[in-house]
Amino acid sequence: MTNPDPTPEFLMLGTCDYPEHVPSDRWAPYARQQAELGLRFVRVAEFAWSRLEPRPGEFDWVWLDDAIAAYAAEGLRVVMCTPTPTPPAWLIRAHPEILAFDEQGRVREFGSRRHYDFASPMFREHSRRITRAVAERYGAHPAVVGWQTDNEFGCHNTSRSYGGASEAAFPAWLQARYGTLDALNEAWGNVFWSMEYTDWAQVKSPALTVTEPNPSHVLDYHRFASDLIASFQAEQVAILRELSPGRFVTHNFMIFESGFDHYDVARGLDFATWDNYPTGMLEFFAPPGVGEDLKTHYARTGHPDLVAFNHDVYRSLMLGKDGLGRDGAGTPNGFWVMEQQCGQVNWAPYNPLPAEGAVALWTAQAWAHGADVVSYFRWRAATMAQEVMHSGLLRHDETPDRGFAEVAGLDLTQFPVGPVPARVALLHDYESLWIYDQQRHAAGLSYWAQTVTYYMALRSLGVDVQITHPDADLSGFAAVVAPAITLVPADRAARWEAAAQGGVPFVFGPRTAFRTPGGATWSDGQFGPLSDLTGARLLQYDSLRPGVTQGVTGAFGSVDASLWAESYRVTGAQTLATYAGGPLDGQSAVIRHGNATVIGAHSLDLIRAVLRGVLGGAGVPLLDLPEGVRVSRRADRTLVQNWHPHAVAWGGLELGPVSSVVLGGDWTPTEGKGEQGE
Amino acid sequence: MTNPDPTPEFLMLGTCDYPEHVPSDRWAPYARQQAELGLRFVRVAEFAWSRLEPRPGEFDWVWLDDAIAAYAAEGLRVVMCTPTPTPPAWLIRAHPEILAFDEQGRVREFGSRRHYDFASPMFREHSRRITRAVAERYGAHPAVVGWQTDNEFGCHNTSRSYGGASEAAFPAWLQARYGTLDALNEAWGNVFWSMEYTDWAQVKSPALTVTEPNPSHVLDYHRFASDLIASFQAEQVAILRELSPGRFVTHNFMIFESGFDHYDVARGLDFATWDNYPTGMLEFFAPPGVGEDLKTHYARTGHPDLVAFNHDVYRSLMLGKDGLGRDGAGTPNGFWVMEQQCGQVNWAPYNPLPAEGAVALWTAQAWAHGADVVSYFRWRAATMAQEVMHSGLLRHDETPDRGFAEVAGLDLTQFPVGPVPARVALLHDYESLWIYDQQRHAAGLSYWAQTVTYYMALRSLGVDVQITHPDADLSGFAAVVAPAITLVPADRAARWEAAAQGGVPFVFGPRTAFRTPGGATWSDGQFGPLSDLTGARLLQYDSLRPGVTQGVTGAFGSVDASLWAESYRVTGAQTLATYAGGPLDGQSAVIRHGNATVIGAHSLDLIRAVLRGVLGGAGVPLLDLPEGVRVSRRADRTLVQNWHPHAVAWGGLELGPVSSVVLGGDWTPTEGKGEQGE
Amino acid sequence: MTNPDPTPEFLMLGTCDYPEHVPSDRWAPYARQQAELGLRFVRVAEFAWSRLEPRPGEFDWVWLDDAIAAYAAEGLRVVMCTPTPTPPAWLIRAHPEILAFDEQGRVREFGSRRHYDFASPMFREHSRRITRAVAERYGAHPAVVGWQTDNEFGCHNTSRSYGGASEAAFPAWLQARYGTLDALNEAWGNVFWSMEYTDWAQVKSPALTVTEPNPSHVLDYHRFASDLIASFQAEQVAILRELSPGRFVTHNFMIFESGFDHYDVARGLDFATWDNYPTGMLEFFAPPGVGEDLKTHYARTGHPDLVAFNHDVYRSLMLGKDGLGRDGAGTPNGFWVMEQQCGQVNWAPYNPLPAEGAVALWTAQAWAHGADVVSYFRWRAATMAQEVMHSGLLRHDETPDRGFAEVAGLDLTQFPVGPVPARVALLHDYESLWIYDQQRHAAGLSYWAQTVTYYMALRSLGVDVQITHPDADLSGFAAVVAPAITLVPADRAARWEAAAQGGVPFVFGPRTAFRTPGGATWSDGQFGPLSDLTGARLLQYDSLRPGVTQGVTGAFGSVDASLWAESYRVTGAQTLATYAGGPLDGQSAVIRHGNATVIGAHSLDLIRAVLRGVLGGAGVPLLDLPEGVRVSRRADRTLVQNWHPHAVAWGGLELGPVSSVVLGGDWTPTEGKGEQGE
Repeated sequence: MTNPDPTPEFLMLGTCDYPEHVPSDRWAPYARQQAELGLRFVRVAEFAWSRLEPRPGEFDWVWLDDAIAAYAAEGLRVVMCTPTPTPPAWLIRAHPEILAFDEQGRVREFGSRRHYDFASPMFREHSRRITRAVAERYGAHPAVVGWQTDNEFGCHNTSRSYGGASEAAFPAWLQARYGTLDALNEAWGNVFWSMEYTDWAQVKSPALTVTEPNPSHVLDYHRFASDLIASFQAEQVAILRELSPGRFVTHNFMIFESGFDHYDVARGLDFATWDNYPTGMLEFFAPPGVGEDLKTHYARTGHPDLVAFNHDVYRSLMLGKDGLGRDGAGTPNGFWVMEQQCGQVNWAPYNPLPAEGAVALWTAQAWAHGADVVSYFRWRAATMAQEVMHSGLLRHDETPDRGFAEVAGLDLTQFPVGPVPARVALLHDYESLWIYDQQRHAAGLSYWAQTVTYYMALRSLGVDVQITHPDADLSGFAAVVAPAITLVPADRAARWEAAAQGGVPFVFGPRTAFRTPGGATWSDGQFGPLSDLTGARLLQYDSLRPGVTQGVTGAFGSVDASLWAESYRVTGAQTLATYAGGPLDGQSAVIRHGNATVIGAHSLDLIRAVLRGVLGGAGVPLLDLPEGVRVSRRADRTLVQNWHPHAVAWGGLELGPVSSVVLGGDWTPTEGKGEQGE
Repeated sequence: MTNPDPTPEFLMLGTCDYPEHVPSDRWAPYARQQAELGLRFVRVAEFAWSRLEPRPGEFDWVWLDDAIAAYAAEGLRVVMCTPTPTPPAWLIRAHPEILAFDEQGRVREFGSRRHYDFASPMFREHSRRITRAVAERYGAHPAVVGWQTDNEFGCHNTSRSYGGASEAAFPAWLQARYGTLDALNEAWGNVFWSMEYTDWAQVKSPALTVTEPNPSHVLDYHRFASDLIASFQAEQVAILRELSPGRFVTHNFMIFESGFDHYDVARGLDFATWDNYPTGMLEFFAPPGVGEDLKTHYARTGHPDLVAFNHDVYRSLMLGKDGLGRDGAGTPNGFWVMEQQCGQVNWAPYNPLPAEGAVALWTAQAWAHGADVVSYFRWRAATMAQEVMHSGLLRHDETPDRGFAEVAGLDLTQFPVGPVPARVALLHDYESLWIYDQQRHAAGLSYWAQTVTYYMALRSLGVDVQITHPDADLSGFAAVVAPAITLVPADRAARWEAAAQGGVPFVFGPRTAFRTPGGATWSDGQFGPLSDLTGARLLQYDSLRPGVTQGVTGAFGSVDASLWAESYRVTGAQTLATYAGGPLDGQSAVIRHGNATVIGAHSLDLIRAVLRGVLGGAGVPLLDLPEGVRVSRRADRTLVQNWHPHAVAWGGLELGPVSSVVLGGDWTPTEGKGEQGE
Repeated sequence: MTNPDPTPEFLMLGTCDYPEHVPSDRWAPYARQQAELGLRFVRVAEFAWSRLEPRPGEFDWVWLDDAIAAYAAEGLRVVMCTPTPTPPAWLIRAHPEILAFDEQGRVREFGSRRHYDFASPMFREHSRRITRAVAERYGAHPAVVGWQTDNEFGCHNTSRSYGGASEAAFPAWLQARYGTLDALNEAWGNVFWSMEYTDWAQVKSPALTVTEPNPSHVLDYHRFASDLIASFQAEQVAILRELSPGRFVTHNFMIFESGFDHYDVARGLDFATWDNYPTGMLEFFAPPGVGEDLKTHYARTGHPDLVAFNHDVYRSLMLGKDGLGRDGAGTPNGFWVMEQQCGQVNWAPYNPLPAEGAVALWTAQAWAHGADVVSYFRWRAATMAQEVMHSGLLRHDETPDRGFAEVAGLDLTQFPVGPVPARVALLHDYESLWIYDQQRHAAGLSYWAQTVTYYMALRSLGVDVQITHPDADLSGFAAVVAPAITLVPADRAARWEAAAQGGVPFVFGPRTAFRTPGGATWSDGQFGPLSDLTGARLLQYDSLRPGVTQGVTGAFGSVDASLWAESYRVTGAQTLATYAGGPLDGQSAVIRHGNATVIGAHSLDLIRAVLRGVLGGAGVPLLDLPEGVRVSRRADRTLVQNWHPHAVAWGGLELGPVSSVVLGGDWTPTEGKGEQGE
């Protein structure tokens, strides 16, 4: 099931609450206040293991029974969690082998959260045991409408353990994948530095090697760790399905989390949720174009496109690798923002207060990108331990904080649920991410940075985007953009070629099809199996240090690329732009072969110009949005957003600082489309 | 006893000498030269364990007997040390469990100094043994006038060990503090992430946790480690009192050392000493306002206020937490500068030569802030091992270095001993420091940075300052400034309230009373038990990244705050300044309630303006000192200092570059007070 | 033997090839293509252990037999390697004690390369065993003309292991060096912090100490580790001499490698080779004067002087510490560039494409500095594992890469072999490097930075340089420059004094003769035993933080020194320049005493001015080369190089961008010597 409400018409709201953190006499008044604020969901108990099972096998359900009763009394629906992110001290001290190891070979100790190795048989047993216990107690509770597994897989770099149970389990995983050591050695290219193995047991985690480990070794360790997370969760999901029929099961994923293949981990869920912290995100995940000036400019709102990208990732995630989704028809089911920032966070170097209007803007944007529920983190700011500096809807002293007022002011009837009319696919793949980031070659670029740059170009053109796995059925899209799919197996190439021949235009970024599935390069070079589609082969790639740029000139005008420039030897493609000056002078920078366009140079302006041409040709309606103004569409409505801290007049609209307006689905700007330029 | 001289009238000088580092034929001529230079004290033997006890139980006293005889022959008085900072190889290799662990879980190896865990029972035994041996030999020696325990507790981050003996001793300390595990779990808020303990033995040091440990856990580990240092020293002091009657016992503390509660560790001493290295200090401890430009400007002198702050900390330290001091009358006894920089240091990234005049200026400043003895480090520059690049009064080749000439030129009769007429208390507390720095929320601020900013404001107004523990009797002060006392128990709040009602004006900085004694926040929010006094509650706090400022406007004019801004809901207080613009627009920035003024925004200009008003109203005489000019008063004299590398005309005085002048205690500037502005 | 060619007349070329990385059907066509390109040498098998001995004691020679046959069929001569840099998994997992430890105490794991401790008796045994096996198989093979031992000793910080076998072997090495513990303790100055040892077994590696270890301890650990490498290689060389008579033995050294004494390790070889990567080098080894602007300017060529310096180091290396060389006549035998960058590298933060012409320029420069063979790395870019982003002469897809065309265009008859007419010695010594860098005192300076600054000054004057060990016979040089020989034993000082008295002018940089052989300072101060020659003693040294400069004025005009300034008390010397302003005002900055000139201040302009005077006086012909233009001479020819990315008119020449021209040995610039200034 996608939503517990039989007929959800509009965006719904919720919050994350921790009854175990406050005296029990606060439960009833809090629930009442939550209901009065218009909240309909409360997520509870993800960190409550030590209170649910204070000693081995001794369960204490009374407090949670009572807390749930308080919520139920106010009509609130409860999202219950498996409390596995925080195994209690009695379990860890009895079985220290549960603990994980970091890349420096150190045990990651008890004393915060996520202190476990997904591969630990002992922890697996306890995970199943506590999941069963909680599900037996609450699986059929009428107030419990769904489940969250664990919490934020991968947070604090916990996707992988470099020792202990994980390391011990790795050889068997390899054996299952490769069958023979010869196949393993061949796939990894272990001949390179005499790294060939003669016994499965010789293989360890790719940590603490004298210099960089074999990137293929790393790639497979990432795959292995991802599989562990998927199977860990699957064990919980199976128990929940058995004991909690009719309830949804989800997980709250994280901003730009790279530690596992989200498509695999999402597979058994009903819908995805994620935790949206726009201001902290800006400090940690801003791509190269977003320098200190923009970070300061957007300090109190975050950057619109970084947030939107994550919304689109998680809206699309349940479509899976085949793109068909649970209904087999490729319709994304609604996602949730399970944790929505509603005041300052506490985990960035600086943690500014959100601007006036930011909480409302974030909520509206979440809706416009497909969220059915936005759940604020957290109800009341914690008065103890690691997160006392993090805000909630209530302050420490229980007075309503600034975000509370913005939530109270929301008119949810503005936000009907319904489809996001995204006709452009942006391809995204965790295996490409892993192998790209192993060998960046230009320190300032990364898989996320390259991918988000293309996404920003699309949003600046007013285009709604469907983040899509590269192996999905692409035939229905108006256009496909593949910013950084560097790992392209032969079957993927064949599917793309078929789609292109079927009329779908493709735009590829640099490094596309540079890698084999094993993480090597094609012996016939980039584009490997995609060479027929692109009508070209790689000639050179260049890594541009800060201060070095590479001119590109073509029908789009002239721009300076930074960070990366690669050129092509055309074997059928036409050249749309060439390099000017430098080692690539006169070589092809942008090429087109039938429906396939390849952009070799990293330049937001160039990418935008090429996309404008391709999408325009494909009949995708385009806008020229000024910096900080964004347009998103859903359910036949249009949300126009101003992320600037100042008012903006644009498109016939007077947009207040940090605000948005909901217009009709057929709305178009009336006074010119881009009079404020970019 | 406070001073070995029966009737010290003027500042006295000394040096740190290492007879074991030079041939014995240098001892007599060095002593003669020291006496001729006017030095009266020599500190010896703090690192000499391997020479005093070359093999287990085999003592060699002859060389030290002879060296002391050489000093005594010239009338020099000897400060003897317990040699515990450097346990010799034979002890460490026989008992490696003495070694401490760093926060990364690594053993901290033999091969430099301070390689021991304060909790090690084995090391405690040897500490007592060697202390007794040295005290038996020299405790009654007529030339020996006092003792220094160990050397620079905490240097090189040695206050805490994160493993081994310390970690093993922690549970018992907790049990003694909390009695029950329930009390521990409640105090730490361990429910937060299921961190609750069910057995004392489950608790370890707060190291290597997956993400940040519970700040309450860290706070108590700091308290525990501080107690270890206090009890370690107390064992030595007891032996010295027994075997060396009539001699003083002291310890040489360090610049801005944060590793332990200095009030607790100082408790059993006769007076405090500290080690003053102004140029190195500037590189490591300059607060936010002192950027690269000022570091370059003051590269050859250090910053006047950083040095002065430490003088005032150590002058006031022996007053203790109750503020009554050893005489019960609140009179600070004289402190020493045990190690005074007299040339370049060797431990900063860059180690410039001091400016001409700097050694004389530092000496005069030390006197003016209450020092009775200034002892230069070191007599002759070391010709071997880790510190060969550090200067002494003599060069490697035994010629007098630049500092020697400045010492020789001092007229000590300018520097009579006597009280520092400080009527303004600045509150300082190590527990507040520990919990503040655990969760800075704005990376550029820290407890020291915030505290020193207030101190700089006071010095720029020409105010003499008494650094005071927040639990001291405050009734006698003209005013009390509490820059960053974030941990405020109820009894402390009650005492402050009584003092304020008794007529003492208070000025509080941001984050005051944000924390409970356990390190949590008050469930009724800041100001917790101080709410009645402040007549207000915390509304918002904002963390300002570099480039983001927050306007403040009021009767003081308009300023831009950086790094931090917090606002208040007044419940009785009046608003003296409000925020302008941004999320805090129109909210209270500076408030006053009776005798309590709270400054919510971080701005040196604002702090200075508020202090000027409060202190002026309290009858404290104020000056408007230009940057780099400072005034300090002692014993009815006034020391006017120019820390600039250029001459300055101010207040009717012509001040040479890097110089000072001693004037009468009633001196006031004659040609306008601030004609050079700030 | 120095060269396998009986009568090498001109520079020869080669490449590094990896037959084990490609299908066997590529061997013949590759060899043919290599021969057609004019290559004459192929280096093979340095990482091939796992293919040569796939299982313990099971050897597979067939593939390498066949590959060598393919090369031989095309007349290519093979340089075989001992495959010891990459011991295979079966060996490491059976004997994990072979692995080394890093300075953090962590085992350095299998999974890349160089995963061994030079001190491991087990690895020594296997090193001898595999060397013998390979030498037995190929030692007398007619196509095999020489050997490379191992590969790039020291790469990835592998010169030293801080634990395990190395740490265990250290005490015996010390005992052999010092005889008694008293001598050890005295040499190290262990009395300093009671670090005295009473048993050899107490001494460990200088790692993980609480604060910095004793620099003398570090110095001896460096010497010890260097000796291990020398003896490790000597074992291989002895076997190769026995089993492969008439073939040369060499090693490929690295850019600015500091991990061992290259003179000692080179001693048993026939000639030296090194691996030349100009662009990567620029990112990692640029001295202080080469800031971000110059890094960007030279991003596609590297800096001419950094490359030239390494050429000169390795050309001169075989002359040994006595300067007499293998022929006893002080004639450097020809060196090789064993690995020459011919496209982008993959190991810097940014890895730009070389400029058009760079490969030809690098090749010509190598020749002009004495290379007899330049061997390009690598034939075909690797398609697997750690180095797929590194270029080769062929691309991944086997098409010729850009460097291929430049190699094909070389006219080797322009490059006759013959002597480099270097008459100026620049002294270089690894012991000075080690002790200098232990205590830099000014973070921005280092031994290499100071040394290269003097080298840059020499090259800017058009001077050919012989890098020379300070203990060599210096009597034949026109002048001797000693930039940073800080460790000067008495016998060295005596030899220098004799040479100076014999008419050789010396120019010394700061910190000269600051240190004793044990790493301490002289008890009579700098210049210790060199004081008679310099006619002066050290007065002060000053460490200048960025932003602080120190004026120097003299007959050379006025300059501002940065980073370092030291002054002298003259005892016979005359003062050529004095300091102006600051703590050194009026003190001697540049002094001269007979044939000895000392420059106390760090300033490229000052150094250049002083060198111009001294060298001009010594009859060395000088030029005034503009930035980026360089002149090198060999075999009666002159190579004029333009390293700028733009054309330059200079000296009557029109120099294209990134190009060089070979002129006669007596060529001099005709249109003024320095019209473009510096």
